[in-house]
Amino acid sequence: MPQVNIDRIERDITAISRFGFNESDRGVYRQGFSEADMAARQWLREQFEKLGMEHRLDGAGNVIGRFGPAGKPAVMIASHVDSVPAGGIFDGVLGVIAGLECVRVLKENGIEPGFPIEVIGTSEEEGRFGGMLGAQAMTGHVTLDWIDKATDERGYALKDAMTAAGLNPHDALHAYRRPEEIRAFLELHVEQGPVLDTERTTIGIVEGISGVFKWNCRLIGKADHAGTAPMDMRSDALMGMVDFAHEITRIIEEEGTDKSRITIGHVACKPGFPHTVPGEVDFTIVGRDLDNGVMEGLANACRRVLSAIARRHKLKFEYEEMSWLKPAHCDRDLMELIERKTKELGYSYKIMPSGAGHDVQFFCNHTRAAMFFVPSVHGISHAPDEWTHWSDCERGTQLLLECVMELACEERALAGAGQS
Amino acid sequence: MPQVNIDRIERDITAISRFGFNESDRGVYRQGFSEADMAARQWLREQFEKLGMEHRLDGAGNVIGRFGPAGKPAVMIASHVDSVPAGGIFDGVLGVIAGLECVRVLKENGIEPGFPIEVIGTSEEEGRFGGMLGAQAMTGHVTLDWIDKATDERGYALKDAMTAAGLNPHDALHAYRRPEEIRAFLELHVEQGPVLDTERTTIGIVEGISGVFKWNCRLIGKADHAGTAPMDMRSDALMGMVDFAHEITRIIEEEGTDKSRITIGHVACKPGFPHTVPGEVDFTIVGRDLDNGVMEGLANACRRVLSAIARRHKLKFEYEEMSWLKPAHCDRDLMELIERKTKELGYSYKIMPSGAGHDVQFFCNHTRAAMFFVPSVHGISHAPDEWTHWSDCERGTQLLLECVMELACEERALAGAGQS
Repeated sequence: MPQVNIDRIERDITAISRFGFNESDRGVYRQGFSEADMAARQWLREQFEKLGMEHRLDGAGNVIGRFGPAGKPAVMIASHVDSVPAGGIFDGVLGVIAGLECVRVLKENGIEPGFPIEVIGTSEEEGRFGGMLGAQAMTGHVTLDWIDKATDERGYALKDAMTAAGLNPHDALHAYRRPEEIRAFLELHVEQGPVLDTERTTIGIVEGISGVFKWNCRLIGKADHAGTAPMDMRSDALMGMVDFAHEITRIIEEEGTDKSRITIGHVACKPGFPHTVPGEVDFTIVGRDLDNGVMEGLANACRRVLSAIARRHKLKFEYEEMSWLKPAHCDRDLMELIERKTKELGYSYKIMPSGAGHDVQFFCNHTRAAMFFVPSVHGISHAPDEWTHWSDCERGTQLLLECVMELACEERALAGAGQS
Repeated sequence: MPQVNIDRIERDITAISRFGFNESDRGVYRQGFSEADMAARQWLREQFEKLGMEHRLDGAGNVIGRFGPAGKPAVMIASHVDSVPAGGIFDGVLGVIAGLECVRVLKENGIEPGFPIEVIGTSEEEGRFGGMLGAQAMTGHVTLDWIDKATDERGYALKDAMTAAGLNPHDALHAYRRPEEIRAFLELHVEQGPVLDTERTTIGIVEGISGVFKWNCRLIGKADHAGTAPMDMRSDALMGMVDFAHEITRIIEEEGTDKSRITIGHVACKPGFPHTVPGEVDFTIVGRDLDNGVMEGLANACRRVLSAIARRHKLKFEYEEMSWLKPAHCDRDLMELIERKTKELGYSYKIMPSGAGHDVQFFCNHTRAAMFFVPSVHGISHAPDEWTHWSDCERGTQLLLECVMELACEERALAGAGQS
């Protein structure tokens, strides 16, 4: 069996990380459609060129390198090239460089795949403009109206950013790929969480991307002087939030699964003075699970508990559901292929959800799609301290290679793929 | 018995409220040493003049009107003239105008007191510059160093404000009054809390001013992606704060009294993003009780509970004690006098602590001092909606008159006063 070369993977990851790298905080600043992002895409095309692959930048800014026969559905190896501000060097990039290495290994071993392999560096996955433009465009999840209206946090328009990057914004719709063109979609990514590192496990086979709902909540009571208002005469809005937060463990135990998450990430008291009983508290609830029914159970429980607490504390409870994204499930056959190859390679693994969003989620309902993780040291990501051991990058890429070889070189695998 | 005249009280309160009154939000803006504040003090001196009282502005800005014989200790009737921004019309002013009415009633009834009566409109009670300058100066609780360094929230210096108001800042130290000069100190004030209004009680006889401690607390955990970090692998700083807040009721039940208050008025999560587990939370704890030992018990319990929670949640707990003001206790003889007069007048009353600070607290350890409240409708104060029914203002002033007449006109009352 051909082997991937970790020195080349390290060299390529290091090389692409130069684009947007900030020496002072050692973070990567390669936000979607920035100059650094577009320069990294150009670099990627040069690597495809060196390998003798066909390559192009599609209308949404995705960089696509292709190797293999025309007229057949492609095995896509994809992840994103853009980063968050002050991001790490592995997030997204690992999956793209791993794909590049897979093609390089096939080429140097003289292996001609029966199906084309596409290595794709997707665009704008980190949501600078509020979506995952590259993956959404390829799977038909983007509209002209959204493209015309999307802006980043500072109010800079997506269409201006795309135009400045040399793209025609409306061409994003031409990036669409019909399911018939795709044999399989594979994404290798760093976990960005602590599970694999904590459990000393090499591979996380992703069973799906958790759905997520976000609520903006408000409890309204009465601001009082913290000295003159006796404890039993208060309508303390913060204490309502506290009572709710205290019930989160129970809510998950009763309504959730081991894949459920409920997080309060933001809290603001009004007026927010030390000597004033908070008359109002705004806070966010973000709930996640891999099952939409479980998510509904969690959401209903949150609503019930908050309503009851509001009555108990003489508060008014208001909430607005800002978003509800359903879970996406990976393809069972692809998961089994990954599991079989992982076992053959002798790597430890676990089947797990992805709590974070990834490009793959848009392909899950579009074609056969799957994803697997390698460990993030201490679970750190979206920060300059993000790290994945090179040995784990090597194992992940080797696993990717062996999956791709079976998918692209053996007719029998996934006979139904591309014809669904 | 001479009777106070509520029409004159209403007229005077309405008249002084014009100084700093804002028509748009109907709030009073008469912050210490502002133009409006100094104009109100001038108006007050004019009222003293009309009544034929001696009057002066002392070095700290207190306006003092005096009626009665020289060379004897004075019965002081005091409260403050300044207001918070957007304050109400009764806070402070009621006690001063009530004193003015008492002297007017004595004069019109031809009563010559055996001891002088001083009606005092104190300065800067609301703490624009971080203290209660007028009362502190009169009782020797102010230093030149503090006067030179104190600033308001915007960095405007106390000494500049005093100079602009026509005062020599260092003259504040000349405002000091020796205990021998004071026979008794009485303060009538609106409750600024909900107790009397809720319990439909007319008079609150204040047994003391609660002590208060303020802590700035910090719990430090680890910021994580709210999707990728399983619930049991988090070090969620906010959940530490929540667990503590949930124990406040128990802490007061076990360590406190019905006069205890523990308030979390300010909470800030870092980074404060909905999709990020809070890695750090800053919050304030303000604790109060009328007994310093109880305050210590509450503070120790807070520390123990926070330390235990920090261990349980894998957090680091830090706190800084920003202030610790001991309780101040009112004079028992004066409280008994007020209670006796209240009973004679047939008013309902209760003995209660003051959870808010007042000028009287600096006089408690300096001379015989006492205070009583009249109800605040819905407990509202420090807001344009502050209200006290005129009938309650009338009862409070009548009670004040009868206490003052006994203290100033009858040699037997408080024989030991002024000689302590």
